[in-house]
Amino acid sequence: MAKVVCVLYDDPVTGYPKSYARDEIPKLQHYPGGQTLPTPEKVDFKPGQLLGSVSGELGLRKFLEGRGHTLVVTSDKDGATSVFERELPDADIVISQPFWPAYLTAQRIAKAPKLKLAITAGIWSDHVDLQAAIERGMTVAEVTYCNSISVAEHVVMMILGLVRNYIPSYQWVVKGGWNIADCVSRSYDLEGMAVGTVAAGRIGTAVLRRLKPFDVKLHYTDRHRLPVTVEEELNVTFHPTAESLVRVCDVVTINAPLHPETEHLFNDALIAKMKRGAYLVNTARGKICDRDAIVRALESGQLAGYAGDVWFPQPAPKDHPWRTMPHHGMTPHVSGTSLSAQARYAAGVREILECWFEGRPIREEYLIVAGGELAGAGAHSYSAGNVTGGSEEAARFKK
Amino acid sequence: MAKVVCVLYDDPVTGYPKSYARDEIPKLQHYPGGQTLPTPEKVDFKPGQLLGSVSGELGLRKFLEGRGHTLVVTSDKDGATSVFERELPDADIVISQPFWPAYLTAQRIAKAPKLKLAITAGIWSDHVDLQAAIERGMTVAEVTYCNSISVAEHVVMMILGLVRNYIPSYQWVVKGGWNIADCVSRSYDLEGMAVGTVAAGRIGTAVLRRLKPFDVKLHYTDRHRLPVTVEEELNVTFHPTAESLVRVCDVVTINAPLHPETEHLFNDALIAKMKRGAYLVNTARGKICDRDAIVRALESGQLAGYAGDVWFPQPAPKDHPWRTMPHHGMTPHVSGTSLSAQARYAAGVREILECWFEGRPIREEYLIVAGGELAGAGAHSYSAGNVTGGSEEAARFKK
Repeated sequence: MAKVVCVLYDDPVTGYPKSYARDEIPKLQHYPGGQTLPTPEKVDFKPGQLLGSVSGELGLRKFLEGRGHTLVVTSDKDGATSVFERELPDADIVISQPFWPAYLTAQRIAKAPKLKLAITAGIWSDHVDLQAAIERGMTVAEVTYCNSISVAEHVVMMILGLVRNYIPSYQWVVKGGWNIADCVSRSYDLEGMAVGTVAAGRIGTAVLRRLKPFDVKLHYTDRHRLPVTVEEELNVTFHPTAESLVRVCDVVTINAPLHPETEHLFNDALIAKMKRGAYLVNTARGKICDRDAIVRALESGQLAGYAGDVWFPQPAPKDHPWRTMPHHGMTPHVSGTSLSAQARYAAGVREILECWFEGRPIREEYLIVAGGELAGAGAHSYSAGNVTGGSEEAARFKK
Repeated sequence: MAKVVCVLYDDPVTGYPKSYARDEIPKLQHYPGGQTLPTPEKVDFKPGQLLGSVSGELGLRKFLEGRGHTLVVTSDKDGATSVFERELPDADIVISQPFWPAYLTAQRIAKAPKLKLAITAGIWSDHVDLQAAIERGMTVAEVTYCNSISVAEHVVMMILGLVRNYIPSYQWVVKGGWNIADCVSRSYDLEGMAVGTVAAGRIGTAVLRRLKPFDVKLHYTDRHRLPVTVEEELNVTFHPTAESLVRVCDVVTINAPLHPETEHLFNDALIAKMKRGAYLVNTARGKICDRDAIVRALESGQLAGYAGDVWFPQPAPKDHPWRTMPHHGMTPHVSGTSLSAQARYAAGVREILECWFEGRPIREEYLIVAGGELAGAGAHSYSAGNVTGGSEEAARFKK
């Protein structure tokens, strides 16, 4: 019987919703391109419920306890005395989330000799030290595609919000004013601008597809070139480097996983090569941007706006400068955990657990690390021997 | 020599921008469908400057005074002692804006015996009593298409903002929290939802086109059916009435001009026919919605969110309930006056004035009223003998 340690974000301080804003969420047939949605044998929740927080438990308790397993759910994840660290020594399986990352460092993996499976309830497992997981022979799996479209929607929303100066204009309403000139002296149309994505995987491509009818000029850079048919369909220009891309773009959106090549990619040097007054939207990983370089660029006017929902570390401390820098449109890390996404990743975690317990293979597209090497989705995004460290040290951010 | 009275919104209280956020705005080749952008002989401004407020003067002073005309620019528009009303008795031409509407009622037209031309620096001239203008033999012209795409972008931004619960999530960042569950307990993906537009003219169609790749189900209602080829291209379902449309939609966007058929169309009765938890976005005209019915629906949960940037009257009083109702994402009336749109409507006003003074015909597509009848764009959107009154009385809003 397995012990499952599940680290989730806190319950709402405003109380659990007595009734939800909506009665149902749309039923999707499949993901773009044909991948099927998660196919667990059963789920013990109603899609549209809040599942991602501690008392939501990803809807797993009945399933796990019914099979005789132990489930520990906590949001206490940081430091040596945290519940997470205390539960690790006899944990068989860890389930964590990018939104509230339980950083699974090499040190922590060393403290968990029985740990065989780490599941990310979401996508991108950079909070796990993948090298240590490979060396241990662990399996690392995530629910590929579960919230890629959620994030792509967030990106388009934030691009429009920055370019059109949405939030400052909203604030004039709440303050009781009708200061149109103040609202619009920083408000532009997106139409005709050049928009580029750093990486064109599932999210980046979905962003490009959604932006195409806005009559913008599309650009991308990626390790992997898109098929010619897709480049032609989207009328998108390939750049071999981020540097080449940012020189021509009015809006840049980052949709790349975090790995050593992307860590601090957007530093003072690269930002200086952007067009003055460009907008930057980063819903990928906080560490891809140099925190203080972003603040400097907004203060100088080199960047006209910055938005995104990824930070380092997470949760961001109260005094994180991105909370107060000018012309930002940040959210906490929420883009991939809409109620719609939660239904999919909770079902995906259930599917992975069913497979694991029943000795059936986990879907190839869910696997990041398996059998002592990068696998499936992991091999696409990361490089062996050159993976992220899962560090929780805030100091790394500044290096 | 003509006296031109131009009513524009106030200058920024935070001061005129010393430098703009961006160095230029994109150069567009033409509007969608091929209509050319405004073609004045010359403009005396740099595209991207703030032109729409009092000291911006739409960039017209040098042009008008150079030809010996008189230009009065003011933002003081309401009541019998306003500058606008005091300047009317010998005005030949009135230029006004929907954002800061100088309501040109029948009474005011009666007080302006020399008035021959009313130009809307923007689109939709419902702040002018078109019937009185017809009877006087006036010409009413607007800069058709100048900001239709601007508004369409605003609509898509607001739909995503409401559905994904953007602004409340941003507010948690600013407050210093990391309350993911509180953010997302009202956050959904747009994907798979049914979205309908009331009217599918230039703006409504542009909204549909931009939403198509979001994999939503599209619906519309309009007086004029779209060509079959467009219906098929957008895979959009026609409804003969707004009532039929709202019953099936998760998101409804209003893109219809104001006329007696649309005034207070969204009242308690119609809202009751919407799906519980639907979102309503109105960037068309405030009077199309019953003010207090909207507030009631948000408070009861019948509507999950309301956004838009049109109010009645404008400017909205400090105690307008739409400033404080729950789950709103309102802006002042700014969607059609981005710096990008200003460059186009200022050039369009200049084109209309050049034509008028030189006795050349004004473009057919700019004409709302001419030669004693509804003309061009006006004949498409309004019906003779059944047009809006241009009233400034707030009381009308509640009838």
